[in-house]
Amino acid sequence: MAVRNMQLQTALLPQRDLLTADQRFSTAPSCRFFTSKTSLRRSLSAAPRLCRAVLSTPSLKDESKHQNKEYEDDGRVFNFAAGPATLPASVLKQAQEELYNWRGSGMSIMEMSHRGKEFTSIIQNAEASLRSLLKIPDDYAVLFLQGGATTQFASVPLNLCKPEDTADYIVSGSWSDKAFKEGQKYCTAKVVWSGKSNKYTDLPQPGELSLTPGARFLHICANETIHGVEFKDYPSPGGDTLLVADMSSNFCSKPVDVSKFALIYAGAQKNIGPSGVTIVIVRKDLLGNSQKITPVMLDYKIHADNNSLYNTPPCFGIYVCGLVFSDLLEKGGLRAAEQRNIEKAKLLYDAIDASNGFFKCPVKKEVRSLMNVPFTMETPDLEAAFLKEAAAGGMVQLKGHRSVGGIRASIYNAMPKAGVEKLVALMKSFQERHAS
Amino acid sequence: MAVRNMQLQTALLPQRDLLTADQRFSTAPSCRFFTSKTSLRRSLSAAPRLCRAVLSTPSLKDESKHQNKEYEDDGRVFNFAAGPATLPASVLKQAQEELYNWRGSGMSIMEMSHRGKEFTSIIQNAEASLRSLLKIPDDYAVLFLQGGATTQFASVPLNLCKPEDTADYIVSGSWSDKAFKEGQKYCTAKVVWSGKSNKYTDLPQPGELSLTPGARFLHICANETIHGVEFKDYPSPGGDTLLVADMSSNFCSKPVDVSKFALIYAGAQKNIGPSGVTIVIVRKDLLGNSQKITPVMLDYKIHADNNSLYNTPPCFGIYVCGLVFSDLLEKGGLRAAEQRNIEKAKLLYDAIDASNGFFKCPVKKEVRSLMNVPFTMETPDLEAAFLKEAAAGGMVQLKGHRSVGGIRASIYNAMPKAGVEKLVALMKSFQERHAS
Repeated sequence: MAVRNMQLQTALLPQRDLLTADQRFSTAPSCRFFTSKTSLRRSLSAAPRLCRAVLSTPSLKDESKHQNKEYEDDGRVFNFAAGPATLPASVLKQAQEELYNWRGSGMSIMEMSHRGKEFTSIIQNAEASLRSLLKIPDDYAVLFLQGGATTQFASVPLNLCKPEDTADYIVSGSWSDKAFKEGQKYCTAKVVWSGKSNKYTDLPQPGELSLTPGARFLHICANETIHGVEFKDYPSPGGDTLLVADMSSNFCSKPVDVSKFALIYAGAQKNIGPSGVTIVIVRKDLLGNSQKITPVMLDYKIHADNNSLYNTPPCFGIYVCGLVFSDLLEKGGLRAAEQRNIEKAKLLYDAIDASNGFFKCPVKKEVRSLMNVPFTMETPDLEAAFLKEAAAGGMVQLKGHRSVGGIRASIYNAMPKAGVEKLVALMKSFQERHAS
Repeated sequence: MAVRNMQLQTALLPQRDLLTADQRFSTAPSCRFFTSKTSLRRSLSAAPRLCRAVLSTPSLKDESKHQNKEYEDDGRVFNFAAGPATLPASVLKQAQEELYNWRGSGMSIMEMSHRGKEFTSIIQNAEASLRSLLKIPDDYAVLFLQGGATTQFASVPLNLCKPEDTADYIVSGSWSDKAFKEGQKYCTAKVVWSGKSNKYTDLPQPGELSLTPGARFLHICANETIHGVEFKDYPSPGGDTLLVADMSSNFCSKPVDVSKFALIYAGAQKNIGPSGVTIVIVRKDLLGNSQKITPVMLDYKIHADNNSLYNTPPCFGIYVCGLVFSDLLEKGGLRAAEQRNIEKAKLLYDAIDASNGFFKCPVKKEVRSLMNVPFTMETPDLEAAFLKEAAAGGMVQLKGHRSVGGIRASIYNAMPKAGVEKLVALMKSFQERHAS
């Protein structure tokens, strides 16, 4: 924590991510002995004044190479899984260090009463960090729940709708389709746009949508993990219709204007923590109107009234989420995260687009996801050979979802740029060897 | 794991827990240099043949003192929390060691795809260990779910009942009362016995129960965490009425004849792991009849058909549960666990009963819980002074539940005997100083 606090004080690391390449390399060289960002950080904490210029020196010019080496020295693979997904190495190390005895409490976080002062501080800090990251207005409740986004497919209509209400769904992939199907149980759920006929490679244009007048809410999936389509702008349903978004797979990957939404929900296991935690951000004035058949654990008001402690929450998972939130804040918040994600995604999409069709991404360019990059090759055999080579090179979980096949590289917040560069290098080398 | 496997091979440690004191101390002394059970175990793994007699030597005569010292040297407190609760130190250390890079996979378990071979082996091993511990018949499904027992309060009637069915509830404390109230939403829930008028200090005698003919199920809470009453024998509802039990707070604390039950459920955070995992053991022939309004995530058949992988499960929590199950097996299974629990509980109840009313346990002797021991003192001031002294001595979370006050010592599987002995020693000393 001392290191982390010091980093916050120097406030240098976050800013660096916003610098252009030119700015980064414009300062006089010094401290060339630092071999990686991590060791640099450790040293910064010891001598912050001395090293203020370090982060912009040529010694870090090839930062990715260092990241790469650091990963490999540490026995880490580059994990492109769609979720549960890679987490920041520094967060994992802190969680490891604190697992047996959390900050001198004599207990693991897994053993602590959820009503004790230790865990109270953990969940409150996690909420405060998330509020800070997303600039969540005070009239929104933040809930730490269980059950994944799939549970929210039921909770949303149960809490927001009367059974006779209509709710509109944009079906842009497998997840929004599941949300729609579950919604049918609890209201008149209507599909107002579907990407199915185009194999979920596109999203609706603003003018294309014909919403139901008086619909209670419009539901979207902000990023379809399986198909790799992501909303860049969000539809405005207008009138009293509420906008609801499943942001599971792009949550905290970029800034979001929360005030445009009535409700945002997200499973943690993509960008912010381990599986078993689900975040719900909901306008407080919407609470207290759940249907009578709502299980108590799916009633948002119960959880809001009890600060997510109505029953025992998934304490260890919430703790890890809190560490990730702190880490994101230290790295410059969501604007900086977005810039890193744009940079990484560009590397990968550029490689695909420059391959003369050797690699193909089926998704329309305007709606390509920054998080999940699906692509295909000419034959399943080629894809299998590619996956094998990737795994041999320490790049794992690149197989596309079993429902669509192909390759999928999930490059969430915590995927280092070096991982994407290594993947791109393999793609180029593979193409050279296999292109006919 | 090498150590653990070696322990299994020698099969000595489990048996020791079943030895009488005489048997334990009857062997010729040797290996006096071992200062704790843990270091002994480590050494055993290196030289199992040499040390076969060690576990019965006088060097371990005062094992509790060693446990105590070991705890204190390690910075651990004795944590009497009702849940989340203390876990085996060895399990925590293993989880810590493996957190950053699970067994050479290059990933944390928190980062692994739940459909990858690594996690598949983890969840399958956890289920196999639990089946072995509880001797679960093959015609029962074992589900690893989310949401705590409170979610099951809804899931049970939603899966087992039609809306017009009657379900009987024995209300023996706060938890079964909550289960009953939630049940009212989904069937005709009836209280067939209530301990409320006696402040939940008793349980029904077999003859006392007047069940509803044709009731779909009879629901019991096997152990009431707040009030400290525990079923020693289970009622047999007879006819086609199913027996359903919430075993959250005594799950895996003793053997249970699973075949007597249609369904058993338990939150993990008492005896078997961190919060965020809920185990359901359900007869397979009962699946597939859920009410239409059942959220997909509350439908047992969905989870059974998908081996608990319909959506992303709480992977890290399931992993820790698996470690606890292995640990229990290595220590002789549930019969041995029960013996240890009886021994610990006897120490505490004997101290209360021998205090001439200075400490009082309100619960009827025949139904006193082996897991949660509530007791009171003459005044709240005395209780506060006692709690303060206990905390100063490294014994924490002894305050009774906010709804009932007093003291409560939760002494689950992982509470070392030394912790109970230390508590009893404080009770005696405190009484000597404060008895009028």
